[in-house]
Amino acid sequence: MRFLKGHGTENDFVLLPDPDGTLVLAPDLVQALCNRRAGLGADGVLRVVPTALEPDAHPYKGEAEWFMDYRNADGSIAEMCGNGVRVYARYLVEAGLAELGELDLATRGGIKHVTVSADSVTVNMGPAVLGDPVDIDGVPATFVDMGNPHAVVHVASVEALGVLDPARKDLNVEYVEDVAERHLRMRVHERGVGETRSCGTGACAAVVAAVLRSGDPRGSAYQVDVPGGRLVVTWQEDGHVLLQGPAVLVAEGEWRDS
Amino acid sequence: MRFLKGHGTENDFVLLPDPDGTLVLAPDLVQALCNRRAGLGADGVLRVVPTALEPDAHPYKGEAEWFMDYRNADGSIAEMCGNGVRVYARYLVEAGLAELGELDLATRGGIKHVTVSADSVTVNMGPAVLGDPVDIDGVPATFVDMGNPHAVVHVASVEALGVLDPARKDLNVEYVEDVAERHLRMRVHERGVGETRSCGTGACAAVVAAVLRSGDPRGSAYQVDVPGGRLVVTWQEDGHVLLQGPAVLVAEGEWRDS
Repeated sequence: MRFLKGHGTENDFVLLPDPDGTLVLAPDLVQALCNRRAGLGADGVLRVVPTALEPDAHPYKGEAEWFMDYRNADGSIAEMCGNGVRVYARYLVEAGLAELGELDLATRGGIKHVTVSADSVTVNMGPAVLGDPVDIDGVPATFVDMGNPHAVVHVASVEALGVLDPARKDLNVEYVEDVAERHLRMRVHERGVGETRSCGTGACAAVVAAVLRSGDPRGSAYQVDVPGGRLVVTWQEDGHVLLQGPAVLVAEGEWRDS
Repeated sequence: MRFLKGHGTENDFVLLPDPDGTLVLAPDLVQALCNRRAGLGADGVLRVVPTALEPDAHPYKGEAEWFMDYRNADGSIAEMCGNGVRVYARYLVEAGLAELGELDLATRGGIKHVTVSADSVTVNMGPAVLGDPVDIDGVPATFVDMGNPHAVVHVASVEALGVLDPARKDLNVEYVEDVAERHLRMRVHERGVGETRSCGTGACAAVVAAVLRSGDPRGSAYQVDVPGGRLVVTWQEDGHVLLQGPAVLVAEGEWRDS
């Protein structure tokens, strides 16, 4: 079975090209691939399949040529992954299946509009939905739904926090520090995972909260430094959030069925 | 650059075939390959080079056809690695460069005698050298040198220990529980690394300490269950220790220079 390995700000993925739509992603196969000692190691698997050949993608036939079948490392299905869709788009371009520029991709979270350049990949993550503030360990946090729920806490220093262990385990929690104007530093505790090197939807939520806090108009690009690299996020006037950053493929090969 | 990925009881390695002896393992390349998010991810790199083509291996010309150039994940040179040499031998057989059965390999730690079968690889790790007992957090531990220093602590339950954090950071510390006759369970804290899924020399030290504790004669095979799988260790009458266990290759491919 052919694979590629890639990452976006160190959120890493195994990509499985499936041009004939014949690959069955059993949970134990996904777990074996993602195992960081006994397998290739990844945060998730991206199966690259034509929309026309994947029953789950039939609602999107005619709208997008390719469907992103995303699985978490534990084998479960996830609707969307902001860094994953960027790495997926990079693969399509490098494999000659799409051209640099704009591209629509089908996901279980709907059609995603992507722009691929030589240095970065930008994805429209859709609208941010605001909710009532939530309490994170005694501190008020901004609630932002990006398809998944986020609580954004403003802190003086993310380095000073030590080990992240919020009491609320049902939310993704972003701890965000101001570095300069429109420049944030972020650490994230993902629900069900723990602290990670990067979280695309988390960076989006952090910038939405920062715009609300500053009172700036929407439409400005913010830099968000995460442990795995730098993302650029823009909360557009139409309410949608753009996520931009590097997406690279580092290896390709054959997985041996063992 | 061609690579393979393999592991022995979840001690994992990137193998780099170098039949012409032309590959330069700069520390930053090793670090990039071993990075678990931005690279392939591994505990170390095994360069597979003919003894005749590697200056470091010239003392062994005529004694062994292949030299194991081993690097830690941080890019530093290490003399030997018990699980690494087993995975290395598996590669030679699968690639048709050696046959099932007995084999001598050159390492910076000297010639290693290996036996490869379909299911496991056994390596003669050389003699165990005993030292004076050492104190590990108030508990007396057996000191065993297997080319690297080990302190073996006998405990009632390795599960009950929680996070391993011995005060002595200059030793590898093995915590060993009796499961049944000649059957141990082990957790290990490797110096400079922390707790790992497996440690070949640590399993050897654990069995040496168990034989001393039991008063059994040498020469019996012990099962050692580590988090990453099962090893079988025999402290021979000649003082040498045999380490046996699974060694598998899971993938192969091309690393992209980025």
